[in-house]
Amino acid sequence: MVGTRNPLNLGAAARAMSNFGARHLRVVTPWEPSFREARSAVGAADLLAQAEEYPAVAEAIADCSLVVGTTVARNRDLHHPIRRLEEGARLIRRRLATSRVALLFGSEKVGLSNADLSHCHWLLRIPTRPDHGSMNLGQAVAVCLYELVRDGKAITRGQKSASPRAGDLERITALLFESLRGSGYVKPRTSAATLEKLRRMVRRMQLGPDDATLWLGMLRQIAWKLGQNEHPQ
Amino acid sequence: MVGTRNPLNLGAAARAMSNFGARHLRVVTPWEPSFREARSAVGAADLLAQAEEYPAVAEAIADCSLVVGTTVARNRDLHHPIRRLEEGARLIRRRLATSRVALLFGSEKVGLSNADLSHCHWLLRIPTRPDHGSMNLGQAVAVCLYELVRDGKAITRGQKSASPRAGDLERITALLFESLRGSGYVKPRTSAATLEKLRRMVRRMQLGPDDATLWLGMLRQIAWKLGQNEHPQ
Repeated sequence: MVGTRNPLNLGAAARAMSNFGARHLRVVTPWEPSFREARSAVGAADLLAQAEEYPAVAEAIADCSLVVGTTVARNRDLHHPIRRLEEGARLIRRRLATSRVALLFGSEKVGLSNADLSHCHWLLRIPTRPDHGSMNLGQAVAVCLYELVRDGKAITRGQKSASPRAGDLERITALLFESLRGSGYVKPRTSAATLEKLRRMVRRMQLGPDDATLWLGMLRQIAWKLGQNEHPQ
Repeated sequence: MVGTRNPLNLGAAARAMSNFGARHLRVVTPWEPSFREARSAVGAADLLAQAEEYPAVAEAIADCSLVVGTTVARNRDLHHPIRRLEEGARLIRRRLATSRVALLFGSEKVGLSNADLSHCHWLLRIPTRPDHGSMNLGQAVAVCLYELVRDGKAITRGQKSASPRAGDLERITALLFESLRGSGYVKPRTSAATLEKLRRMVRRMQLGPDDATLWLGMLRQIAWKLGQNEHPQ
């Protein structure tokens, strides 16, 4: 839950999670009074009491191998594939068999920011009506989690190779950015946009864990070399 | 909505109905102040403003050919068949093609009474966890209505973009190799093997044409910078 403001929505999200068997609630920069209120509410689920708070999306998702943003928009973001909930849930279930998946919900007012979205591999859209797409946050959480547990049929446990963790992807992004800055590719004025662009690009690469390790090694060396040349001894 | 007490739940039910295209909200013996409050709420959906109020279930469902009660109980009521939401929704959809169907939601505290249930043809159960079955009312409405509009055949048309040309992949490989050599990553003895490894890795990235262009630009700059430093003027 990113930037949630209404304590009722945090409570509702926790309740739906408990109903449908999701366990790890992570909140990123919640509105503080709201988070305190939700936590201290009578009957707050254990889940809410154990919610972990993070200062940034990157840290909240660091141990997840798939990061999915939720949106009601149809065309808002052309950088990400958008999947309908019915289809996306199938992919998420498959991934859950081997690793952690983060499902990101933005704030009540503005949803997920472009910076938040840059951490996502793809976006999930709940099939609401075109002329009234925007859902209540607690209801959106419930519907997404329901779709994940819906249909008790066995999940085909394919011999899916594991995916790299989000933390590794973020390190790759950071090293690539550092290398590009060292090379003069990054312009100061657009450096934030460039970082976001890189973050999305790295997620699109769909690296396996071995390739992620390979990239980390290569980029460390390149970034080190460029840094060294920047400040000759 | 039978005997609803919390205005937020009436509002949430109306919003979910609007999201998923249900039109006729009927309230039976709501807690009056709650109903008034929900209706007068800023931004109350048209749907809520047009909600019809009835003194009893019998009158609210008089024009419906199928009446389905909602419950979280598994064995509570032996008089009615209980269907899981996934299955029940299919039957409801079929009936909706020819006539009206009533979906009954009980009060927050006690659900539907036995008297309410006696009007039902069968009951619908949302597949929540056995040890935390009870859902928030607004979320239960959202999940049931979502299941009704859910489309099992929904398949997003994969955004298959064209693939980059082999020549571009080879240029990326060469530039990456050059950058790595400039950084000291490539050992002379194994340089042929490293080049092959990179070539395979670049193909595994499954780049789209735009990302290939992006990589070419980045690597050109990095390779140029590293080359420049190698032979300072």
